[in-house]
Amino acid sequence: MSKKIFVLNGPNLNLLGKRQPEIYGHDTLADVEAKLREIAGAEGHEISFHQSNHEGEIVDTIHKARLEGCGVIINPAAYTHTSVAIRDALLTCEMPIFEVHISNVHAREAFRHHSYVSDIATAVIAGLGIEGYNAAMRRLLQLL
Amino acid sequence: MSKKIFVLNGPNLNLLGKRQPEIYGHDTLADVEAKLREIAGAEGHEISFHQSNHEGEIVDTIHKARLEGCGVIINPAAYTHTSVAIRDALLTCEMPIFEVHISNVHAREAFRHHSYVSDIATAVIAGLGIEGYNAAMRRLLQLL
Amino acid sequence: MSKKIFVLNGPNLNLLGKRQPEIYGHDTLADVEAKLREIAGAEGHEISFHQSNHEGEIVDTIHKARLEGCGVIINPAAYTHTSVAIRDALLTCEMPIFEVHISNVHAREAFRHHSYVSDIATAVIAGLGIEGYNAAMRRLLQLL
Amino acid sequence: MSKKIFVLNGPNLNLLGKRQPEIYGHDTLADVEAKLREIAGAEGHEISFHQSNHEGEIVDTIHKARLEGCGVIINPAAYTHTSVAIRDALLTCEMPIFEVHISNVHAREAFRHHSYVSDIATAVIAGLGIEGYNAAMRRLLQLL
Amino acid sequence: MSKKIFVLNGPNLNLLGKRQPEIYGHDTLADVEAKLREIAGAEGHEISFHQSNHEGEIVDTIHKARLEGCGVIINPAAYTHTSVAIRDALLTCEMPIFEVHISNVHAREAFRHHSYVSDIATAVIAGLGIEGYNAAMRRLLQLL
Amino acid sequence: MSKKIFVLNGPNLNLLGKRQPEIYGHDTLADVEAKLREIAGAEGHEISFHQSNHEGEIVDTIHKARLEGCGVIINPAAYTHTSVAIRDALLTCEMPIFEVHISNVHAREAFRHHSYVSDIATAVIAGLGIEGYNAAMRRLLQLL
Amino acid sequence: MSKKIFVLNGPNLNLLGKRQPEIYGHDTLADVEAKLREIAGAEGHEISFHQSNHEGEIVDTIHKARLEGCGVIINPAAYTHTSVAIRDALLTCEMPIFEVHISNVHAREAFRHHSYVSDIATAVIAGLGIEGYNAAMRRLLQLL
Amino acid sequence: MSKKIFVLNGPNLNLLGKRQPEIYGHDTLADVEAKLREIAGAEGHEISFHQSNHEGEIVDTIHKARLEGCGVIINPAAYTHTSVAIRDALLTCEMPIFEVHISNVHAREAFRHHSYVSDIATAVIAGLGIEGYNAAMRRLLQLL
Amino acid sequence: MSKKIFVLNGPNLNLLGKRQPEIYGHDTLADVEAKLREIAGAEGHEISFHQSNHEGEIVDTIHKARLEGCGVIINPAAYTHTSVAIRDALLTCEMPIFEVHISNVHAREAFRHHSYVSDIATAVIAGLGIEGYNAAMRRLLQLL
Amino acid sequence: MSKKIFVLNGPNLNLLGKRQPEIYGHDTLADVEAKLREIAGAEGHEISFHQSNHEGEIVDTIHKARLEGCGVIINPAAYTHTSVAIRDALLTCEMPIFEVHISNVHAREAFRHHSYVSDIATAVIAGLGIEGYNAAMRRLLQLL
Amino acid sequence: MSKKIFVLNGPNLNLLGKRQPEIYGHDTLADVEAKLREIAGAEGHEISFHQSNHEGEIVDTIHKARLEGCGVIINPAAYTHTSVAIRDALLTCEMPIFEVHISNVHAREAFRHHSYVSDIATAVIAGLGIEGYNAAMRRLLQLL
Amino acid sequence: MSKKIFVLNGPNLNLLGKRQPEIYGHDTLADVEAKLREIAGAEGHEISFHQSNHEGEIVDTIHKARLEGCGVIINPAAYTHTSVAIRDALLTCEMPIFEVHISNVHAREAFRHHSYVSDIATAVIAGLGIEGYNAAMRRLLQLL
Repeated sequence: MSKKIFVLNGPNLNLLGKRQPEIYGHDTLADVEAKLREIAGAEGHEISFHQSNHEGEIVDTIHKARLEGCGVIINPAAYTHTSVAIRDALLTCEMPIFEVHISNVHAREAFRHHSYVSDIATAVIAGLGIEGYNAAMRRLLQLL
Repeated sequence: MSKKIFVLNGPNLNLLGKRQPEIYGHDTLADVEAKLREIAGAEGHEISFHQSNHEGEIVDTIHKARLEGCGVIINPAAYTHTSVAIRDALLTCEMPIFEVHISNVHAREAFRHHSYVSDIATAVIAGLGIEGYNAAMRRLLQLL
Repeated sequence: MSKKIFVLNGPNLNLLGKRQPEIYGHDTLADVEAKLREIAGAEGHEISFHQSNHEGEIVDTIHKARLEGCGVIINPAAYTHTSVAIRDALLTCEMPIFEVHISNVHAREAFRHHSYVSDIATAVIAGLGIEGYNAAMRRLLQLL
Repeated sequence: MSKKIFVLNGPNLNLLGKRQPEIYGHDTLADVEAKLREIAGAEGHEISFHQSNHEGEIVDTIHKARLEGCGVIINPAAYTHTSVAIRDALLTCEMPIFEVHISNVHAREAFRHHSYVSDIATAVIAGLGIEGYNAAMRRLLQLL
Repeated sequence: MSKKIFVLNGPNLNLLGKRQPEIYGHDTLADVEAKLREIAGAEGHEISFHQSNHEGEIVDTIHKARLEGCGVIINPAAYTHTSVAIRDALLTCEMPIFEVHISNVHAREAFRHHSYVSDIATAVIAGLGIEGYNAAMRRLLQLL
Repeated sequence: MSKKIFVLNGPNLNLLGKRQPEIYGHDTLADVEAKLREIAGAEGHEISFHQSNHEGEIVDTIHKARLEGCGVIINPAAYTHTSVAIRDALLTCEMPIFEVHISNVHAREAFRHHSYVSDIATAVIAGLGIEGYNAAMRRLLQLL
Repeated sequence: MSKKIFVLNGPNLNLLGKRQPEIYGHDTLADVEAKLREIAGAEGHEISFHQSNHEGEIVDTIHKARLEGCGVIINPAAYTHTSVAIRDALLTCEMPIFEVHISNVHAREAFRHHSYVSDIATAVIAGLGIEGYNAAMRRLLQLL
Repeated sequence: MSKKIFVLNGPNLNLLGKRQPEIYGHDTLADVEAKLREIAGAEGHEISFHQSNHEGEIVDTIHKARLEGCGVIINPAAYTHTSVAIRDALLTCEMPIFEVHISNVHAREAFRHHSYVSDIATAVIAGLGIEGYNAAMRRLLQLL
Repeated sequence: MSKKIFVLNGPNLNLLGKRQPEIYGHDTLADVEAKLREIAGAEGHEISFHQSNHEGEIVDTIHKARLEGCGVIINPAAYTHTSVAIRDALLTCEMPIFEVHISNVHAREAFRHHSYVSDIATAVIAGLGIEGYNAAMRRLLQLL
Repeated sequence: MSKKIFVLNGPNLNLLGKRQPEIYGHDTLADVEAKLREIAGAEGHEISFHQSNHEGEIVDTIHKARLEGCGVIINPAAYTHTSVAIRDALLTCEMPIFEVHISNVHAREAFRHHSYVSDIATAVIAGLGIEGYNAAMRRLLQLL
Repeated sequence: MSKKIFVLNGPNLNLLGKRQPEIYGHDTLADVEAKLREIAGAEGHEISFHQSNHEGEIVDTIHKARLEGCGVIINPAAYTHTSVAIRDALLTCEMPIFEVHISNVHAREAFRHHSYVSDIATAVIAGLGIEGYNAAMRRLLQLL
Repeated sequence: MSKKIFVLNGPNLNLLGKRQPEIYGHDTLADVEAKLREIAGAEGHEISFHQSNHEGEIVDTIHKARLEGCGVIINPAAYTHTSVAIRDALLTCEMPIFEVHISNVHAREAFRHHSYVSDIATAVIAGLGIEGYNAAMRRLLQLL
């Protein structure tokens, strides 16, 4: 199978590993990407890895995933709670979608308890740290 | 009158005609544009047609409409429900504003029942399919 | 096709054209009816035109539409927001249903933002003035 | 001035004086009417007195008041809390409108605390017994 | 005892047996009436059977039941959720009141979960099909 | 009967007749008092008339009314919506209590639609202008 | 058919007939059981009758009903309003489910107006007294 | 380290693999346990595996985990949404707590969107199927 | 008087004195029991002391209190906020009921601000530490 | 220790013992004060006892307690539910604060279920009658 | 211009500089007053400076400002959230009104997020410390 | 100190001074910038001034401020009410943050009363016109 797995990261995640390491750890997005390539590669899958602070760019990338992808792992970060545009873009993708949050959003402010993605996702993982991406990837590979 | 009619389309509408044709039909945005040019042209009006997945770009274009336009037909799609920025931009335009939705948003998820545009629009049309744009244009031409 | 298109008007619409012409215009329901007959007639369709201030009478008429009609254009006026009886009657009709409001109800009191009809209608049009009926009719004729 | 004062009574008020006299007293609607005719007559005013259990009939009568009346005293009874149609009809009347309730609705079930008439009325009187009609009439006569 | 049992049916129930028989069955209101006459007759009771799409007419009939009846079985249908007038009329009746719904209203739209009748009724039955009327009648006869 | 009728006026009512005469009229509290003395005097009743901007003072005065009064007419003004202390003081008075508002509070800000007094009052009058006090007094005299 | 009808009774129902007989009557659960055995036996059906104050035990019994039963009549009592566990257990049963309440729960505290069972039940009966079980049984027998 | 990892399963999970296999799969709780023992065993950890339909028993077991455990993986099932007792018991445990749901609860009924456990858990996993337990175990082992 | 005073303790209270002593103190339930026996004994009263993590067992014990008790002191702990079954059981007891919480529940999570017991209790004490039981006992003895 | 214990009583409590003795008993505030002096005196503590119907005066007294006091027992009465000013004054006091209500406020109107004091108090006692003051005093003395 | 600028301070502000200096700083109200006199004096304006813990006194002072003032700077403190009386008093003042809070109320308890003054004020400043008064004064002087 | 003060302006603020000058005045953003440079320059501080209609760009700029800035003055305009992304970006900045609104947002539509920035800001200023930026700058300079 030649379709790619898209991994999308929302706003402020470019700072991963650079701020509050006591909470988010010292790993950067580059570390996340490397580990995911290793896991997916072991099963012969390529990944397409992205981060953007722009809602519109994330929508654009999901449109690409719609054509070239076989699965989406997305950490929408702040857009989880505010973006219907990303929800609508994901709705056009006929493939498994995994929502990942590094921290446990359920233990934070009330407005973070609602997600525009969760009810249309295959699964939701929160609080596993960057290990959450790996767990999502392993499950996604089982479903392909 | 030399001012143009601006037709603005929000996120994911670039996929019109390419997904779920049983719901949205086979017509693309290009077809929508062609038909609107025909209707407006018959009355001697030019149109300026846009689509963007970026909230900020839509705001930018509305600022242009503010200066160069005589009316706005907007399908804000997902931004209908989340964008105060687009509302505020439209509030600066002293001209008729028509809100169009291809599907009947009132029959979908509860969060789609609220629009940041409706109460400042001249009219709201939902569920007429792409014919909704034409109905809006015909009415707008009556008001000019 | 020999089935008729039913056009139903709710309470207080008998005053159309007689009060607040600066808002509702000078056209009366008779004018609305004449124009609709013209549009439908051009496609070989008959219409059955009604107005009532009585919820029960509107229910009765919808029952007639259920048997003799091929489509309904309804401006439920005040009953939009309070009548489950009309909703239930419309639910028995297997034909396209268009909800029309002359003014933009979304820009009025909060209780007018909820409709018992919208989520079971094919389309909803608000704020096009009496042109809204015509737009609904044109679309309905496309669907027959 | 030859215009009449319309006094409208909503559903179940035809039973006034016939049930729960310990609460509503022994006076009937006929007694209310007689007293109001006396008060209005003393100032040279005629009244048009009505009761109906039918929302549509009350709307019809308000339309008549719109043409022939110079003021409305209405006890909408149960329709106070459910009828937008009556509200809309009253909105077409350019004359003083008084809302009267025989009992103190504020001390009853929560749904009786909201009225579709109060915010468009000149005044609201509740709990004065049938004396409430008289107080409304006296004030109305001052305003004519 | 010479007082009658009133059986009242609200809007759209005249269509019983004529639409969606897979849900509502093939029995009509006439069948319901016949069966109830049989059950009540066996105990020497007469029934007075009604259906109306008009809220006001139902109020009128309840006023009759107040004088001539010894019990009420009512399926208020859509008016269950919107009619304070019917509630107020029933409040004037000093006799057992049974609220019956053919389908299980608790499994339908949220607005059907509230009834203006339930808290003043003796009992509420929903989802027993037309058998619900019979169960209500049997219990009513026990109470007389 | 030698007990007095207490008339209590809440905060800002000392400005009556001095501000916004187009809304509140030109009559002052002194005029209100004079008229009430006249009405009550005609029936041989004395009145005790008060105004205070202090919630605590109003409570103190109600305690006096509890001992020396036979009825209370109160316009709690702003404290209508915020004072449980006044409600509790009124609850200790075993006599008729009339709540009066000069303007129609139901047509103003949403927070003015709730009153801590209404459900424990005999009657509520709003929008009759200063005539509201007189109507309350007349009814109170009937009840004594 | 050899499958049994399960009749389940929730917390505090073991006190039936022993407290507040003026409300709940003098019949005990044993009387209820005897009557139900009689009705079901007449149609050749066995019943399995249970009462428990323990949510977990009721779940256990429903699991048994899932394997050995052909229908469930359940009076979940207090658990009606608080138990998702019982709801989930009932969701595993592919057979008719009847929810019965002896008193009219709709006339009691607000928290009793919500049921975790009603929307997944075949029918809901409240206020028929212990006759409610019999009515449920008769209908269940019709459906088998 | 000699402390055990406790794996707790709430009501109805004893039916895993026996109902709706198209949703929940064919694996039983025994399969889940075997796989978890394998993963934990590879790191030299023992597990203590439980299922109960009784809220109180789950509380009891958590008290045991408090003394003998070094981590908890819990699928509270229905009690997720209703049990403060389980929350309070978990609050006494000073060790990592993982909340696992086999299906994606976020895509189900609204009442399943609230969890009494999530905000006090280390992480929450929903929708990964029984693989969710494994992902939780792998992460837990990293934290020990 | 030979009837006993029942003291009931809900889930997790068996851990009293064993966890978070800085909050809950070092006293255990056995210490609470000893002190209460001393206070009650001084007045010649016996007590029946219980703790359970099982909602159903607490209901069972309340049924016993109903027959053998003359008063109930209950710390329902977590079940305060979720158990209608315990409320219903207490409703069958015609004797004084005291609700005690060791910590000040009003200062904790919002869901702890609602109690299913408070409005049917004689008194509610929160935040007095284990001294709360003693204060309740002293008052209860006054009422016997 | 020479600091005093402040006992503060809110509006209408000056009537204690003078109204509704069947509910509030025959003891007056003077009796309450005497008993508290006795209890505190036995431990060598002086008390400063106050009652006011004026919110501002209570704030003033709390400011005094802040300087001269070592503990506060407050029955804010009606101000419990409406006074942020008293809350803010108490927040400046670094000493134990006990909130006492003579009756069980939880069993009264819904607006009495919220307190601006409870979450910043050490403890809350409601329904113990005037014994509640004594229980608070005994506990306060333990904490000093 | 000879009119004065009124500076009003609500309850507990008399303690400014005396409690929690780490939050509120060491400046007292006297320091605030001195600085404001300096700023206003430089522009030839006099100020009238007040503090009160009594809602009624603040209303009284606003009435004075209405006659003698040309602008109001008010820090209503706790009354911000509870006083309609102060709002109504301010509504009688036809002059600029500035609402100042020393701390950032938006970051505190939810009930502090609503102000009865903000929507009728010219401007709102929160969190600037006592510098907020100065900023308000400078702007007010620009508007005079 | 060589770090810069970042001044950020959200969507539609590029139109400042060009629309509704009667509300927003004639000053443009360039005027705002000039004045701020002057104030900051007087204290030896440089400023970095930005405006964008794009949420993502504002996030990008805040990331720059995080590294190069010593304080942020932000007028998020429409994004105040909808952007969690901007909130999250600001949360990564360890420096004073001032939220400024030119008009008094508290006096506008209800949705403008909530800000995703206010509770994490140092201070909030609304309604001071463009003077609000200057007041924020003066305070920020005090804190550096």
